[in-house]
Amino acid sequence: MQERVDEKSVSPLYLRVRDHLAAQIAKGLLTPSTRLPSERILAEEHDTTRVTTRLALAQLEAEGRIYRSNRRGWFVSPPRLIYKPTHDYSFSENVTAQGRVPATETLDVTSTHTNSWLATRTGMAIGDPIVWLRRRRQIDGRPVLVENIYLNPKRLPGIETYNFDRSLWKLLREQYGVELRGKQIEMYPTALVDPQASAIGVTAGTAGLYVTRCSRDADGCFVEFDEEFWLHDALSIQVEVS
Amino acid sequence: MQERVDEKSVSPLYLRVRDHLAAQIAKGLLTPSTRLPSERILAEEHDTTRVTTRLALAQLEAEGRIYRSNRRGWFVSPPRLIYKPTHDYSFSENVTAQGRVPATETLDVTSTHTNSWLATRTGMAIGDPIVWLRRRRQIDGRPVLVENIYLNPKRLPGIETYNFDRSLWKLLREQYGVELRGKQIEMYPTALVDPQASAIGVTAGTAGLYVTRCSRDADGCFVEFDEEFWLHDALSIQVEVS
Repeated sequence: MQERVDEKSVSPLYLRVRDHLAAQIAKGLLTPSTRLPSERILAEEHDTTRVTTRLALAQLEAEGRIYRSNRRGWFVSPPRLIYKPTHDYSFSENVTAQGRVPATETLDVTSTHTNSWLATRTGMAIGDPIVWLRRRRQIDGRPVLVENIYLNPKRLPGIETYNFDRSLWKLLREQYGVELRGKQIEMYPTALVDPQASAIGVTAGTAGLYVTRCSRDADGCFVEFDEEFWLHDALSIQVEVS
Repeated sequence: MQERVDEKSVSPLYLRVRDHLAAQIAKGLLTPSTRLPSERILAEEHDTTRVTTRLALAQLEAEGRIYRSNRRGWFVSPPRLIYKPTHDYSFSENVTAQGRVPATETLDVTSTHTNSWLATRTGMAIGDPIVWLRRRRQIDGRPVLVENIYLNPKRLPGIETYNFDRSLWKLLREQYGVELRGKQIEMYPTALVDPQASAIGVTAGTAGLYVTRCSRDADGCFVEFDEEFWLHDALSIQVEVS
């Protein structure tokens, strides 16, 4: 981790302020969701200017250690949600298992047609009917991701009529007898742009993680393509190989 | 992907410039490593100001679609290296298999002792001897990551005397008969700080991906802990679950 201080550093002043705050967070002297002292007080404590203090805070934000809440100041980031892509659990199950509270909000459901971008990723033909679902998900009341989900109405007739403010996987299992198999997952860092950034409540350009997952049923039939835009500081991906 | 234009947008002007350039990249009209026209020319082409153009370029940089080369302007990013954490290949093998040219440079080798941070992650005892190796790796001549590798000299006697400008896994296999088993991998977005940022040649605060990997041999003995700091636009992680 970057909070180690075992490397002799001749770092600029703002990085020394950053190192000091990062060490306090790492040691648990500043705990998750704690509000940091004001910029003025931090500047005094570190015997430096507010400009330097702001640089240090921006750096800690970029690393995902603190976050800004509109007009309420800076807070220590909650722990990252551990996500194990090889495990078979839903978002809600995973968040709950880590002692936190999930929430899901449906933003929009549209019956539309497969475009070329989606055809390449799903194996559907261009023009095939597809159901496009937009949702926002929260952990402990904080929006952490928005997602575009594309569902195959041939495999899931009437899917657009359900309530999606719940686990989609459970719905697929219980209402359609679908057990998802053969998931292909891709993940990379990106910046959030609109409409995703504003749906999460952050400014365009905020760092994020882009995750896509294509899921098929036991017969190899395309069921669901999920495109997730995560806040950069909200999750940690873990993979175990034996 | 964010280049789709199927969402009606009332986006600010800089995002429209961004969308136009992103579409040109997506369509292959601007190919990897192509230099973009100057900011002045882009501003004229889009009938806008240089300030707006710069906002659009910064956004595309944050998304990993373009990168800046010192004093030489903006270039279209090369494709992300596909990294499949469940597959058993070295960096060099993986880069070569994707038709690109890997290079590895040893920055430093130090015989030191296990600190508490490392003890938690490796199962070594605090104070145990450990060999700390720092390397920088390139793809097609562009530095994409720096790494701290911690090696267990009890399992790998004399390891500090080898040349590390090559595949470490090959070295472990050929010289020590080690087949790595039981890898634990963790990945999350972060910002690069020094000394990593300057070793890669980017400014502190540039977006990155932080990857750690703890590897053991077939008997469960700790062999290697690898801590990698990747440039945000250099790789894409893929996981397949069947």
